[in-house]
Amino acid sequence: MQTKRKQDISPITELKKRLTEVSHMSSILRLLGWDQNIYMPKKGDDLRSASASHLSGIIHRMFINIDSDGLLTKLKKQVDDKKIKGKDAIVVEETWRSFERERKLPEDFVKELVEVTSKAQGVWAEARKKNDFALFLPWLTKIVNLKRKEAELVGFLESPYDALIDFNEPGMTTSEASKILVDLKDFLVPFIQNNKSFKKKINTAKVFGKFPISKQIAFNEMVIAKIGFDMEAGRLDVTTHPFAEGLHPHDVRLATRYRENDILYSLSSTIHEAGHGIYEQGLPVEHFGNPLGESISLGIHESQSRMWENIIGKSKSFWKHFYPELQKEFPIPFKKLSLDNFLEIINKVEHSFIRTEADEVTYNLHIILRFEIEKDLIEGKIEPKDLPKIWKEKVKEYFGIDVPTDTLGVLQDVHWSAGLFGYFPTYTFGNLYSAQFFAKMKKDISDIEKQISKGKFGEINKWLRKNIHSHGKTYKAGELVKKVTGEDLNSSYFIEYLKKKYK
Amino acid sequence: MQTKRKQDISPITELKKRLTEVSHMSSILRLLGWDQNIYMPKKGDDLRSASASHLSGIIHRMFINIDSDGLLTKLKKQVDDKKIKGKDAIVVEETWRSFERERKLPEDFVKELVEVTSKAQGVWAEARKKNDFALFLPWLTKIVNLKRKEAELVGFLESPYDALIDFNEPGMTTSEASKILVDLKDFLVPFIQNNKSFKKKINTAKVFGKFPISKQIAFNEMVIAKIGFDMEAGRLDVTTHPFAEGLHPHDVRLATRYRENDILYSLSSTIHEAGHGIYEQGLPVEHFGNPLGESISLGIHESQSRMWENIIGKSKSFWKHFYPELQKEFPIPFKKLSLDNFLEIINKVEHSFIRTEADEVTYNLHIILRFEIEKDLIEGKIEPKDLPKIWKEKVKEYFGIDVPTDTLGVLQDVHWSAGLFGYFPTYTFGNLYSAQFFAKMKKDISDIEKQISKGKFGEINKWLRKNIHSHGKTYKAGELVKKVTGEDLNSSYFIEYLKKKYK
Repeated sequence: MQTKRKQDISPITELKKRLTEVSHMSSILRLLGWDQNIYMPKKGDDLRSASASHLSGIIHRMFINIDSDGLLTKLKKQVDDKKIKGKDAIVVEETWRSFERERKLPEDFVKELVEVTSKAQGVWAEARKKNDFALFLPWLTKIVNLKRKEAELVGFLESPYDALIDFNEPGMTTSEASKILVDLKDFLVPFIQNNKSFKKKINTAKVFGKFPISKQIAFNEMVIAKIGFDMEAGRLDVTTHPFAEGLHPHDVRLATRYRENDILYSLSSTIHEAGHGIYEQGLPVEHFGNPLGESISLGIHESQSRMWENIIGKSKSFWKHFYPELQKEFPIPFKKLSLDNFLEIINKVEHSFIRTEADEVTYNLHIILRFEIEKDLIEGKIEPKDLPKIWKEKVKEYFGIDVPTDTLGVLQDVHWSAGLFGYFPTYTFGNLYSAQFFAKMKKDISDIEKQISKGKFGEINKWLRKNIHSHGKTYKAGELVKKVTGEDLNSSYFIEYLKKKYK
Repeated sequence: MQTKRKQDISPITELKKRLTEVSHMSSILRLLGWDQNIYMPKKGDDLRSASASHLSGIIHRMFINIDSDGLLTKLKKQVDDKKIKGKDAIVVEETWRSFERERKLPEDFVKELVEVTSKAQGVWAEARKKNDFALFLPWLTKIVNLKRKEAELVGFLESPYDALIDFNEPGMTTSEASKILVDLKDFLVPFIQNNKSFKKKINTAKVFGKFPISKQIAFNEMVIAKIGFDMEAGRLDVTTHPFAEGLHPHDVRLATRYRENDILYSLSSTIHEAGHGIYEQGLPVEHFGNPLGESISLGIHESQSRMWENIIGKSKSFWKHFYPELQKEFPIPFKKLSLDNFLEIINKVEHSFIRTEADEVTYNLHIILRFEIEKDLIEGKIEPKDLPKIWKEKVKEYFGIDVPTDTLGVLQDVHWSAGLFGYFPTYTFGNLYSAQFFAKMKKDISDIEKQISKGKFGEINKWLRKNIHSHGKTYKAGELVKKVTGEDLNSSYFIEYLKKKYK
């Protein structure tokens, strides 16, 4: 797709130019997805899928063509020979990483994976509905085999799971992840089972009411604009599965879901997505199109959404500012509900079967359970057919409750049917990163709680932008957390946060 | 961009495959335009323009690459040798037409034209605002020269204007257009100046009121769904300049503008755009991607919008059905306004300076005036500097009124600053086609007025689909009108229509 390189452009500039062209097309592909989700008329589905698939093919070929004249290979050699250093070296290295991966996976393999996972998602949905694991089993088996093959093709040092986790959280290894998550589990299991306050009866129905959707939208928009999401460089729409999609830093699209009787249902997911969105808006636009302008990893992305949703968005300081506004806008039911009672409700911890409905404490046990299972599956230590049994045993052990059905158990998440292995742990990494970053931020901004309680989020955003967003992929996640906090990623900050909040 | 042709695919199938891939990308480009117009956040402009420009470049290269292995050239020869006939020959011929044109225009020329017209539109807007033709003159001169050069590059038989009109209305020539438009002018000038009914005072303010936008939208959607626009294969949004954009027959997007005090302002433009939209939805989806699935010409497109907007949408039969609904929905002001009075207001004819505000009678004189001027400009018979004077003289002659400023005269339309020459006449062709088609439809559907007055539009749409929409580009506009009505395009049906309506 590229015209021949002009003599007066340096090779690295030429590489960035080619990458930018690819990025524009990827950005357009994301817009297609957004539109399909939000505004596309019903009958547009078939032809839209074809359009998206054609564009995906073009993007793939454009990306491979980057090296059609050996430009990338030559630059990679110069980086290896230390002739290119600094930011330019990062652009080359990160491009090489993706390029190598794409080249290592034969087109036939990729096609098969896409076809199998696309069909498997339909089967999974039916199996979940019918509580019929046997229906899903042959597809799960196929996918596990394909993912194991993917790991072989991509290559790994110790565990085949390394290849999958590294794709989602570059630089992370299975053994490092295990260590971090085991530490957390060792704390969480007794913490949850022994904490008496979690057993307290709380009437959560007190926050229900009648909230017209248009008024909820206006309130959500007010809140996210106030915490720092730029509504002139983004928007908020209505959907069934909330998401944040950054086309580029100046056009970031959020979507959330609504229930008429529960404004907190939309609000907490909106704040979560706005956290992702603020990160996307904070990426350096001058580097749009190359790795220096891209987000680091799923885990770091999730740290931004979780920090806003939970650490800030469920804190007393935050609601000191916003609760009066909520009460004013929706006097029924909030006028008669005290702030403390309200906080108790939105921070209620309880054992539950479903990950997506879990609170910030138990949530991570849901993840650890999945991590252990998918790691063992990929390493061939357990068989797909044994999953329902293993699932039930683990839930019993970690939560002390009995899983009644596979629908409420092993069949609850779409991820495995979509071929997403090595993805779940990034949710918990996000929680851990967020606590570790926030602890440092608190040191740097001494009156942070006071600022939050006054509805002032400028300094927080300045801190996030300076320390995290503006770097793009300059650092790997592990390097960034070390650079910012002085320590490797670990669970101690998150544990401290929980201990303090739920003492 | 294409992978090498497989042995087991016929050359014509391979051509269609390549064309389809290009069409998917063009469809995506139209979505980008739609989004930019309707939902894109404010700050997204710069990067969106870059994305669209990259995609345009890719589309251009993909289209040129269709013949990279000589596939199209070979097929064209087979068509010339009568070895390929019928619909396949049309696919080849129509592709060849566009291909030849793209090849004849050197890349540097196209770039210059894009740059000049893109800047000129800004200058024109300022000039119009300041009533300063001198400001716009150097740019207009540049553009006229470029368009004359374009005509030279593309080639023509008699007049250089042929090359420009043929681009918008394939098959039409300057001399044929002149003949048709002169006939029409010879009727219109005395008809307008001598018709006493046009001088009657009518209080148009009687239709003004207070119409909440959301209620207007609902009413508009009800009307267009009823006349045959499929809301599951399209949508209606809010914008400042109304448009219809078909991504493909299953996804057609309309947008209209609103004034809170005037529901007819939005309704008539919505019906107009729905006419375009019904055409787009009626194109044969099985031919999406090649000329058999594309609309014929601007003129035929406009015939569809004008038929619904004016011939049907401003008729007594139409309002016999919809007026009670309008009165019910908006009792103020319509409850006290009789249907006859209402019809008199929406069909009021008056001399006006501005084309876009003109009624269906005087509208065509506005077009004829522009046609004469742009034809003379391209043929080198007049100079851009003399335009204000020529404009005023013609308006005086045709309408009998004095143009007070260039803003209300020669500077009113964006077209010339955008390089659109040979475009204006297609508006009037649309009116003429619509009357000629409708006259035939009336013969074929004897109780058409009765059906319309009952809100039944099924047979009309069946007729339109069978006779016009389903053919794609199978026939040139001139061939189609002959095939359907038995006559070449002429002004007599439109003249009869006006005579009867405004007797």
